[in-house]
Amino acid sequence: MKLIAITAVFLFLLSKSAFSVVSKATDECLVCHRTVSPGIVADWQKSRHAQTTPIEAPKKAALERCVSAADIPSGLRETAIGCAECHTMNPEKHRDSFDHNGYRVHTIVSPANCAVCHPVEKSQYEQNIMAEAYGNLHDNPLYGDLVRSVNGIQTFEKFATAIRPPDEDTNAESCFFCHGTKVEVTGRVTRQTEFGDMEFPTLSGWPNQGVGRLNPDGTMGSCASCHARHEFSIEMARKPYTCSECHKGPDVPAYKVYEVSKHGNIYSSMDKIWNFDSVPWVAGKDFTAPTCATCHVSLVATEEGEVVAERTHRMNDRLPCRIFGLIYAHPHPKSPNTTIIKNKAGLPLPTELTGEPVSDYVIGEREQTKRREAMQKVCLACHSAQWVTQQFARLEKTIQTTNEMTLTATKILTTAWETGAATGLPQGASIFDEAIEKMWVEHWLFFANSTRFASAMAGADYGVFANGRWYLSKNIQEMADWLKFKLNEMQGDSNK
Amino acid sequence: MKLIAITAVFLFLLSKSAFSVVSKATDECLVCHRTVSPGIVADWQKSRHAQTTPIEAPKKAALERCVSAADIPSGLRETAIGCAECHTMNPEKHRDSFDHNGYRVHTIVSPANCAVCHPVEKSQYEQNIMAEAYGNLHDNPLYGDLVRSVNGIQTFEKFATAIRPPDEDTNAESCFFCHGTKVEVTGRVTRQTEFGDMEFPTLSGWPNQGVGRLNPDGTMGSCASCHARHEFSIEMARKPYTCSECHKGPDVPAYKVYEVSKHGNIYSSMDKIWNFDSVPWVAGKDFTAPTCATCHVSLVATEEGEVVAERTHRMNDRLPCRIFGLIYAHPHPKSPNTTIIKNKAGLPLPTELTGEPVSDYVIGEREQTKRREAMQKVCLACHSAQWVTQQFARLEKTIQTTNEMTLTATKILTTAWETGAATGLPQGASIFDEAIEKMWVEHWLFFANSTRFASAMAGADYGVFANGRWYLSKNIQEMADWLKFKLNEMQGDSNK
Amino acid sequence: MKLIAITAVFLFLLSKSAFSVVSKATDECLVCHRTVSPGIVADWQKSRHAQTTPIEAPKKAALERCVSAADIPSGLRETAIGCAECHTMNPEKHRDSFDHNGYRVHTIVSPANCAVCHPVEKSQYEQNIMAEAYGNLHDNPLYGDLVRSVNGIQTFEKFATAIRPPDEDTNAESCFFCHGTKVEVTGRVTRQTEFGDMEFPTLSGWPNQGVGRLNPDGTMGSCASCHARHEFSIEMARKPYTCSECHKGPDVPAYKVYEVSKHGNIYSSMDKIWNFDSVPWVAGKDFTAPTCATCHVSLVATEEGEVVAERTHRMNDRLPCRIFGLIYAHPHPKSPNTTIIKNKAGLPLPTELTGEPVSDYVIGEREQTKRREAMQKVCLACHSAQWVTQQFARLEKTIQTTNEMTLTATKILTTAWETGAATGLPQGASIFDEAIEKMWVEHWLFFANSTRFASAMAGADYGVFANGRWYLSKNIQEMADWLKFKLNEMQGDSNK
Repeated sequence: MKLIAITAVFLFLLSKSAFSVVSKATDECLVCHRTVSPGIVADWQKSRHAQTTPIEAPKKAALERCVSAADIPSGLRETAIGCAECHTMNPEKHRDSFDHNGYRVHTIVSPANCAVCHPVEKSQYEQNIMAEAYGNLHDNPLYGDLVRSVNGIQTFEKFATAIRPPDEDTNAESCFFCHGTKVEVTGRVTRQTEFGDMEFPTLSGWPNQGVGRLNPDGTMGSCASCHARHEFSIEMARKPYTCSECHKGPDVPAYKVYEVSKHGNIYSSMDKIWNFDSVPWVAGKDFTAPTCATCHVSLVATEEGEVVAERTHRMNDRLPCRIFGLIYAHPHPKSPNTTIIKNKAGLPLPTELTGEPVSDYVIGEREQTKRREAMQKVCLACHSAQWVTQQFARLEKTIQTTNEMTLTATKILTTAWETGAATGLPQGASIFDEAIEKMWVEHWLFFANSTRFASAMAGADYGVFANGRWYLSKNIQEMADWLKFKLNEMQGDSNK
Repeated sequence: MKLIAITAVFLFLLSKSAFSVVSKATDECLVCHRTVSPGIVADWQKSRHAQTTPIEAPKKAALERCVSAADIPSGLRETAIGCAECHTMNPEKHRDSFDHNGYRVHTIVSPANCAVCHPVEKSQYEQNIMAEAYGNLHDNPLYGDLVRSVNGIQTFEKFATAIRPPDEDTNAESCFFCHGTKVEVTGRVTRQTEFGDMEFPTLSGWPNQGVGRLNPDGTMGSCASCHARHEFSIEMARKPYTCSECHKGPDVPAYKVYEVSKHGNIYSSMDKIWNFDSVPWVAGKDFTAPTCATCHVSLVATEEGEVVAERTHRMNDRLPCRIFGLIYAHPHPKSPNTTIIKNKAGLPLPTELTGEPVSDYVIGEREQTKRREAMQKVCLACHSAQWVTQQFARLEKTIQTTNEMTLTATKILTTAWETGAATGLPQGASIFDEAIEKMWVEHWLFFANSTRFASAMAGADYGVFANGRWYLSKNIQEMADWLKFKLNEMQGDSNK
Repeated sequence: MKLIAITAVFLFLLSKSAFSVVSKATDECLVCHRTVSPGIVADWQKSRHAQTTPIEAPKKAALERCVSAADIPSGLRETAIGCAECHTMNPEKHRDSFDHNGYRVHTIVSPANCAVCHPVEKSQYEQNIMAEAYGNLHDNPLYGDLVRSVNGIQTFEKFATAIRPPDEDTNAESCFFCHGTKVEVTGRVTRQTEFGDMEFPTLSGWPNQGVGRLNPDGTMGSCASCHARHEFSIEMARKPYTCSECHKGPDVPAYKVYEVSKHGNIYSSMDKIWNFDSVPWVAGKDFTAPTCATCHVSLVATEEGEVVAERTHRMNDRLPCRIFGLIYAHPHPKSPNTTIIKNKAGLPLPTELTGEPVSDYVIGEREQTKRREAMQKVCLACHSAQWVTQQFARLEKTIQTTNEMTLTATKILTTAWETGAATGLPQGASIFDEAIEKMWVEHWLFFANSTRFASAMAGADYGVFANGRWYLSKNIQEMADWLKFKLNEMQGDSNK
């Protein structure tokens, strides 16, 4: 204990000299936390936050700035952005704030905290459908049932299965890991620490860094989903591994498709000579093929300083259609909050079960064109107009054919419901819990999906044998056979 | 527009100084294209093509040369290989040539263009089965039917499925993305550009960079499949990501198997200290484990300058057997054009349905031995004779056992045909469109395949639980059960 | 031949000057082997073994030492660790020793050889369950049957399948590739070499580098499984690709889960600025996220030199539970030799078929707590106590729910056995060879597994749609349907 105290004093002196721009409050954090959580302190020291001060930002040319605030509060201008700057900001707004060595500290740094220096990014992100990922899943009754059917515990008695709803821990480990949990203060706990007993709040839904996390200060999302603590490296956010945390599985195979694309190949082969730090990001010079961020988020420019694409954290700004997650591909929803959508059949879906988009809730032709053109400007930095036009025409065709193949699968399913081979909408039963229903889910959630991603990003493997058209074609046959075997079994039962 | 003109003049001057070795014609391309397609100009500037001139090539020691032409045409010797050198070469042979600012330009640079400096590589590649990948798929009636059954649109009416043939866009996105499309000039179009209206040819089957692409000048293949435009980096061609664009899916899992092999592990862990640029490529010094290129393509030498393996772009030169894509593994076909093959049953296959190779069309023992020994010389650079011999003996055994397991699956399928549980060869029907037929396809195209790749490249995961023997063993049981359920269903129907 | 002799003399002289610390015996090896196996010589030259001598080890601070021996035999202190040092050590103990140019050389360097300098690592590894991987699979009758059912050759006659036991080559390519083979001297062979005819021993089960390999000197394991010959790079052992060689497939998806975790993302994005060579490995400074080695093996310290985790080669030292490979997750077995385990039903399993652990053979609460705390110390270098506690609570919940879902699958299977729909334990038949049994195996070996790994390592994709809960939920429905279809088919048969 004595050794720790001596070390702490030594480190306090050391930190004062090594980090001259660190605020007094952050200095005090570092004294103990260099011992208590040495990994994140060392990690933070590598960050731009630790190495510069916000007052430097306005000195840069407009395109080179990472700080979008016109005006930084005076107390935050001349010191590094350290522990205290974020974790003690506006404590009254954070229900997770607690007294800690003379400070009101909160565990969960929210988008509202980041917005003090990065307000444009925060307000764009609020319009991003990802910000609403918690509610869009949790509060949509149909999708809520999908969650239950996947995460619930099934049992088997007398030749029949039953399902018990999932617990919150399981949901947090599963769907809501990426979608985000609801983090709430549930109480207080006293813990023994090397500095004596200390009291901390207890949190439910924690840990979580999902993109639509509901924070104790009422904000949605976590900037750390993509800008990993505590280095907050722009390099990392620009690399495809970041997106791959949530966009890799068979339901959203974006990263896998990228990996087998020409773009992904160039990235994997040549990335060590790329420049991932420069702002703006210069096509051809800093990078020779796009990553996820290039096409969907980053400020991209030419060597001559022309803007190819504006930075956006409303990540569907360059996306006319949503090609995954729903039964049919469809124009992007107008509102990031998709729980407001209802189709003619009364279902909370942006298309009918037959595939027609619900036009009131999805963007129109003009907005689609605007978004498509924003994306195509990125393509045109390296490709000819013909190349780009025909690539997008193929994607349109793929959207159409995969929607048709989904319609066929849906017909088999509705036939199963109509004949009683399965129970679903007509019976008021779950549409996700029987074998043929799960085959149907895979049809659109895995196979039609993968095929469209492969088309959009030119990663052909995923359009054919790796969860693509091969499986679409096979699944139709298997669904049709299942229906026949089931009807035969029902016949057998009625013959007894 | 004025700004663009000023910028163009400025860039023209700049380019004259910075690229003294650039030809006048390429200079003129760069003036506009630095603005119009800045990404590829910057990309090209990183290339060896931009930084040296062919006249330097003969000064190098024989093993160090990348240019295989004994004599370069005089106009191409003393300038960089830039836009004009490739895109305006022999315009009369390119049906896609068009008038463009005083030049006859063609979009699609073909192997014939590359062959001016790299003739050996082009003539080897023509003998490579990959050069014929378009026709070998498109013009083989059996495989054409596989394409239709995968890419076609299925419908469902009155408990039965039907199939509509796929459109060309879908085929181009799917099988022919890797195999290559047929690129043809379909007309002309006028586009608005920032330099005024311009006329361009329109192309079908475009974009495409498949290995067997049929080009408008009549040549086959695309060098850019592996040597990505416009950096044409040897580093990239030598890295496994390049091959993985087409050799990753469950049908050709070469890259996946490599990734889990010891070789792949050494590559992934240590590649940052390897030298991917040196020619010849020195075993142990430049790299400490092979990549795809090392074993199949590259000129490999020792530190003392002994040649371990000659460079070859006929990529089956070191491959005695073909272990994927067909129903059974078999000795490599003699001709790269496999559409000429017919087995005893009249099917366009290099083996009978029972597995015996069709000896007239496949290489004999002597050629197999020659190829095996060429490959083994690479292995022997690091491994003992015993290691290598026994490794190859295991592969032989794996070829034999996977062929036996495929024979068993084929027996179940032919039983289904004979009993009427499915319709296939005896009925003159498709052999790829029913559920049991698709199970059979997966048996050889995915599982037997993966098992053999795992054996050939020592990536055991893919020989067991990752699409290997586990699935071979499971699939037999599922095929046998499907047959029983189907026969029972037929019985049920006849009892009605 | 003359050229070779001259080259050899030249190289001999060269090697004498370039490698002044090389022993005379190694010098003699190098003279020929630089020509015969140039790749591994160049590879070895990059190694620490080639560049330093053991006498330097004691001069280092205790935490910085890689050599754990207090005393190195005098003959090995002052020269590099080269060919002869390992391959001629204690020849009498190696049944694979042979006379080779005046030396008794053995092919297979065993843990006993490495232990001369690294005794602590060897003795820890012997207690590691991986050291017994050969016997634990080969000598467990139940798992031996799983091997047979996967690797055996199936046939189909008269609507029934049969199985022929696998050959040794197939087993060596499959399960025992990772588990390790039994390497035995089977005879002698004379080979033509460029230095004339030479006699070598022939070896069965070779090549192999499995973790539980039985060596000709009676030792178990291969240090080269993770420390790849002949660079023996600590960087490589610390990178996740090494573990991925065996821990990637659906049965042990550790690497895949890591890849989609935040930790994996940080590693993939930032590894190029990490320091993989420093000993001890400093959290936050040398690396900013853990790799496999960080959590399971490495000596981890803080910048101030505090030890976060002691180095261990008994890799379950920080693992309270075994979450893969067996039917249910359970506390780790006490003994690395698991063939001694018997449950109440007499089966060689650490749990009953209903999931209860067999308490005599698995570690108790206290040992579990000790191991959990050792692991948590690593987490706490970067994360708060609450974060870590709740992360581990979720894993506990996931273990419980996946075990429950496995119990449900087991109930369906036992119902199939009881009704005669399948034959298994009650009939004294294999429990791995029928379709429903294979579905059951996938339930625990793939899906429950993946879900637990995803929970343990926070790679959520594998807990949901990538072989996780989605498949657990779907598999239950498919097993239940299979049972109904089968019973209906049996009914159909009895109606005939």
